[in-house]
Amino acid sequence: MFFASDNWAGAAPEIVTAVVRAFSEPPVPSYGRDPSTARAEALLSHVFEREVAAFLLTSGTAANALSVAHLTPPWGAVYGHAFAHTLSSECGAPEFYSGAKLVPLGGPGAKITPGGIAVAVASARRGDPHSVQPATVTITNLTECGTLYTPAEVAAIGALCRAEGLALHMDGARFANAIVASGATPAEMTWKAGVDVLSLGATKNGAMAAEAVVFFDPARAADFLYRRMRGGHLLSKMRLVSAQFEAWFDDGLWLKLAGHANAMAARLSGRLAAKGVRLAWPTQGNEVFPILSVEAAARLRAGGAAFHDWGAPDLAPEPPVPSGHSVARLVCSYATTAEEVDAFVKAA
Amino acid sequence: MFFASDNWAGAAPEIVTAVVRAFSEPPVPSYGRDPSTARAEALLSHVFEREVAAFLLTSGTAANALSVAHLTPPWGAVYGHAFAHTLSSECGAPEFYSGAKLVPLGGPGAKITPGGIAVAVASARRGDPHSVQPATVTITNLTECGTLYTPAEVAAIGALCRAEGLALHMDGARFANAIVASGATPAEMTWKAGVDVLSLGATKNGAMAAEAVVFFDPARAADFLYRRMRGGHLLSKMRLVSAQFEAWFDDGLWLKLAGHANAMAARLSGRLAAKGVRLAWPTQGNEVFPILSVEAAARLRAGGAAFHDWGAPDLAPEPPVPSGHSVARLVCSYATTAEEVDAFVKAA
Amino acid sequence: MFFASDNWAGAAPEIVTAVVRAFSEPPVPSYGRDPSTARAEALLSHVFEREVAAFLLTSGTAANALSVAHLTPPWGAVYGHAFAHTLSSECGAPEFYSGAKLVPLGGPGAKITPGGIAVAVASARRGDPHSVQPATVTITNLTECGTLYTPAEVAAIGALCRAEGLALHMDGARFANAIVASGATPAEMTWKAGVDVLSLGATKNGAMAAEAVVFFDPARAADFLYRRMRGGHLLSKMRLVSAQFEAWFDDGLWLKLAGHANAMAARLSGRLAAKGVRLAWPTQGNEVFPILSVEAAARLRAGGAAFHDWGAPDLAPEPPVPSGHSVARLVCSYATTAEEVDAFVKAA
Amino acid sequence: MFFASDNWAGAAPEIVTAVVRAFSEPPVPSYGRDPSTARAEALLSHVFEREVAAFLLTSGTAANALSVAHLTPPWGAVYGHAFAHTLSSECGAPEFYSGAKLVPLGGPGAKITPGGIAVAVASARRGDPHSVQPATVTITNLTECGTLYTPAEVAAIGALCRAEGLALHMDGARFANAIVASGATPAEMTWKAGVDVLSLGATKNGAMAAEAVVFFDPARAADFLYRRMRGGHLLSKMRLVSAQFEAWFDDGLWLKLAGHANAMAARLSGRLAAKGVRLAWPTQGNEVFPILSVEAAARLRAGGAAFHDWGAPDLAPEPPVPSGHSVARLVCSYATTAEEVDAFVKAA
Repeated sequence: MFFASDNWAGAAPEIVTAVVRAFSEPPVPSYGRDPSTARAEALLSHVFEREVAAFLLTSGTAANALSVAHLTPPWGAVYGHAFAHTLSSECGAPEFYSGAKLVPLGGPGAKITPGGIAVAVASARRGDPHSVQPATVTITNLTECGTLYTPAEVAAIGALCRAEGLALHMDGARFANAIVASGATPAEMTWKAGVDVLSLGATKNGAMAAEAVVFFDPARAADFLYRRMRGGHLLSKMRLVSAQFEAWFDDGLWLKLAGHANAMAARLSGRLAAKGVRLAWPTQGNEVFPILSVEAAARLRAGGAAFHDWGAPDLAPEPPVPSGHSVARLVCSYATTAEEVDAFVKAA
Repeated sequence: MFFASDNWAGAAPEIVTAVVRAFSEPPVPSYGRDPSTARAEALLSHVFEREVAAFLLTSGTAANALSVAHLTPPWGAVYGHAFAHTLSSECGAPEFYSGAKLVPLGGPGAKITPGGIAVAVASARRGDPHSVQPATVTITNLTECGTLYTPAEVAAIGALCRAEGLALHMDGARFANAIVASGATPAEMTWKAGVDVLSLGATKNGAMAAEAVVFFDPARAADFLYRRMRGGHLLSKMRLVSAQFEAWFDDGLWLKLAGHANAMAARLSGRLAAKGVRLAWPTQGNEVFPILSVEAAARLRAGGAAFHDWGAPDLAPEPPVPSGHSVARLVCSYATTAEEVDAFVKAA
Repeated sequence: MFFASDNWAGAAPEIVTAVVRAFSEPPVPSYGRDPSTARAEALLSHVFEREVAAFLLTSGTAANALSVAHLTPPWGAVYGHAFAHTLSSECGAPEFYSGAKLVPLGGPGAKITPGGIAVAVASARRGDPHSVQPATVTITNLTECGTLYTPAEVAAIGALCRAEGLALHMDGARFANAIVASGATPAEMTWKAGVDVLSLGATKNGAMAAEAVVFFDPARAADFLYRRMRGGHLLSKMRLVSAQFEAWFDDGLWLKLAGHANAMAARLSGRLAAKGVRLAWPTQGNEVFPILSVEAAARLRAGGAAFHDWGAPDLAPEPPVPSGHSVARLVCSYATTAEEVDAFVKAA
Repeated sequence: MFFASDNWAGAAPEIVTAVVRAFSEPPVPSYGRDPSTARAEALLSHVFEREVAAFLLTSGTAANALSVAHLTPPWGAVYGHAFAHTLSSECGAPEFYSGAKLVPLGGPGAKITPGGIAVAVASARRGDPHSVQPATVTITNLTECGTLYTPAEVAAIGALCRAEGLALHMDGARFANAIVASGATPAEMTWKAGVDVLSLGATKNGAMAAEAVVFFDPARAADFLYRRMRGGHLLSKMRLVSAQFEAWFDDGLWLKLAGHANAMAARLSGRLAAKGVRLAWPTQGNEVFPILSVEAAARLRAGGAAFHDWGAPDLAPEPPVPSGHSVARLVCSYATTAEEVDAFVKAA
């Protein structure tokens, strides 16, 4: 009953096989000048239905921090949800890479809104050197509450960004889950909705360590290769990452893996609800957030269930979390089984 | 005939097998709290014969930059060879992470000397706020010219560092090759000789992407976990790295792989010398630096040999590199075969 | 009718005279090794009734940014009021110098509270590398709403800081006004209440450009001279700043100047209130915040009054600012005259 | 006999008078929106015979560091003489502000040459992310050896910069002395010779604390106001600096002051030479570098002479500095008297 995180899982067999194959081949140029990296980059252009500039790496935090830094001057303001990983859980990596100020916004379900962004932007003093200058918006899809920005919601934020001259970054650590959940194409979820740069994460969805920074306007990626190198994020044996992406995109594997994870979450969510367990936020992707009594949580853990408490009760919908209860986060992955789900529900 | 770099090679079968096994196991905690990471860290303490604090990551540049940053205040001076990777080939990553000034020193064979360091330190004005303050020395072993710092040479630098209150960092991207070449133990080459922090690289020696920052005084590693995270270098599925290290140290694999690479280099070097080819620097590890005519280099490449020119003629011993010639770098790896070597020598 | 800011004023005659005298003297050592700087530093120890380490400079923003940077590791969290100058009006200077994350807190009258800090600290995950680590609290006294932290209020925050292992910084851009307003001694307002470092500003209170970073524990100031230099804040002809401080402290000038400014604000505040003008926040120092109709504000400006709108209606006490009204900020200085005050009140 | 530095001197009476007048005037807008700042900026455009964008501040180190940072991306290389103040005596301020790598070059008399720059640029690997990318050249005029770059020499460097796509910065801490020494116009010495940005220092030449960053292409100054603010270098009572510049440029005062200092240096130099004292470098501005025996230096200091040893014997022309001797630096200022000069010569 492993629901602690999708990064507790191993790797999908297809990914493992691809890595084995890649490292059994003859020598290839290092630092991303190998054929596999070229193929992975081409696949990204294919998947997103336009020429993109893509940069592979092994860390999602790095993908976010480098992206934000490339879009934002040191005196810029970056708007994101207070609860977003980029703001709350990266130990200031975006600040380190960019020098900019991350401005925390609110919003139910860990989602920011055009209205909330507009208020924050309006409170900045443009042209006044005392004030950091509005520069970038960052959204996470799926969010840290497992909720989904629909393409229409992204597009509304994108339109505001265009109007205000802001760049739009999407943290796609669970992008595949969002794609499956929304039914949108990758293009519809990103550049067609105004996203400038995507941190695309494969790691949580069946890979070992495979992330990509995807610029939808290749011109905007100028000099990014220096920024990545300078952060120590240019791998010498890049085939390690590119092989994972090749396999991930092969025959729609990425969507199959995410589809399975989402389906397991739906099963878990539905059966918990059927038992009367209240959920803090709706289940839209691969994460389920039941409100459990302290006793129930302890009993489940004693029975072998692994999951985290999720410390954002103020983000939960009304009515508030009852005393003696807390919000738990259950994450399904490509590897979650129906048996695990059912065992958990039974024990709950 | 692949002699371009040891990071063009794939990965040793034992490493591949270990990664496959690691990712086929059940879920484990993420971010390095898994059993494999604990085992890898324990192995590092065992190999170095003392309790160390070790931090695993996927990039050697990151290992160097993070190490230097942890040892040096922003107003510090870091002394290293002008030709060292840390100074010449990391796009300023050490400066980015530390804020400090990297002071380039000279020295034959890309090796700095206690005397050279002492002169540089003496020219700094201690206590004068106008001057960066002497803080750290960084050496690379093997060097970028394939030469070896013997334990005695390291110890001489270490003694100077102690006397001057400087920290000593070793970039061990080819540490295994240096160990084999010197016959020293890992302890003798590092902390017994005064090294405070080692960037230990497995990647060039048969791994996929496996590096470690090793603090020989664990107290000095305080807060390093935040520094690593903040740089985006804390992997979520850390077993990817730890499994490589487990296999690398298992049954002395790391020394076998490096021993093979060094032996191939010795064979290459000896046979080239026997044919009258002059070497820029002595072959002490897994790298050979013949001085080739432009025509010979072109002919070899046309025949399928992959290698780089090495742009440091001013570091070559007397007499100077003749006009129409340049220094080539030939790197042997765990995967180099005697047939490759002999084919190259024949074609030379 | 100049109420735009206390930094629109010129300089007190005593300050001007001191600067003239200083620059008419024979050559003296540069970079702060002159006798006047030594005297100014000694005066600071005298005024604060203990041995302090003081660093003079010309910018209050620099004083704040350097102080925060010296107290906070790059992965630290700095807690302050969202409306504090340090967070809202320094274009990210504290982030630039420290690398840390400035965490905005709320609180009426631009004052943070021990309870508010405690909640924020509790929400950080100590020891978890994903989370910035609680490090520093910064308070501004007088605040940006002209309100006063009493010594008891500072001490309550100081006690929390001690208990939580946090450093406490005070931005004293209007420190003299706060001292006069509170009746406390400088020692009672600072180190006796747990303040570790004070940015002491003379500029707004009759000087030309004179600020000091004051460490109440000199040991904590180690290496600060490098940090100041590295930021470009070590003046070569330091007598410019030290002469101002010498005059400022001479015969209690600093308190006389602030006392005058506070008295003018009290006169202004009292007479406005007597005319039925509502104030957003109580007048405790040299700033008055009347709630004016748009028409009244325009009429006053047309009549020659200079003042700023103050964009923090959400900080005003209940009931909310009526539609068609806004909060104005009127700042009195050492140079404000009773005639100016009365003319403004008459026009209001 | 004060020859320690031109920043040991006080301020010229005209400067003092201007500051007194400025601070006796009625309130004016702060942060550089006052009439005096506008006038000073206009004067700079007038003096340089073109529309410039100028930013006033109180520190020459800040002027240099901010300029370099604005011209150079974080992954850029900045070429300058190893002995230049920017590289040797600013505690890494340029690195702090820019993140870039300062690459030390050689050259007699502390002057770099087009040839030296070209070699350094050629050794960088353009487009290779491992290598910092050539971006900026910085020269100091007068140099730290008191030598002059003639407009023709600057133009030769400027031409190379254009050809290589590099920006050219001039540290003009002693710009007035260079102008007097060269007979060139300010325009000829700067933008007509290819200089993009000048750090113009008045402090060493009779001011209290007055420096300006001058962009000869105003478009290039975009966003510089944020960079200055973020460094804490936007003065609130800017009239302090602007009044100094107004007086400095009034009726050619700046050239009169520099002319006096240069003349005193010429007198000192000529008379020392006449007594057989050897000079390390030719006297071209306001600095004289006699080679003195240890005994002579001690005797002079005992007699009341203040001067510094100048630790760059390797920069002296052949033959080398004899054993038991060292290079002294004697700096004349606007305030140096012929009596001081003659007394020194007599005692030498």
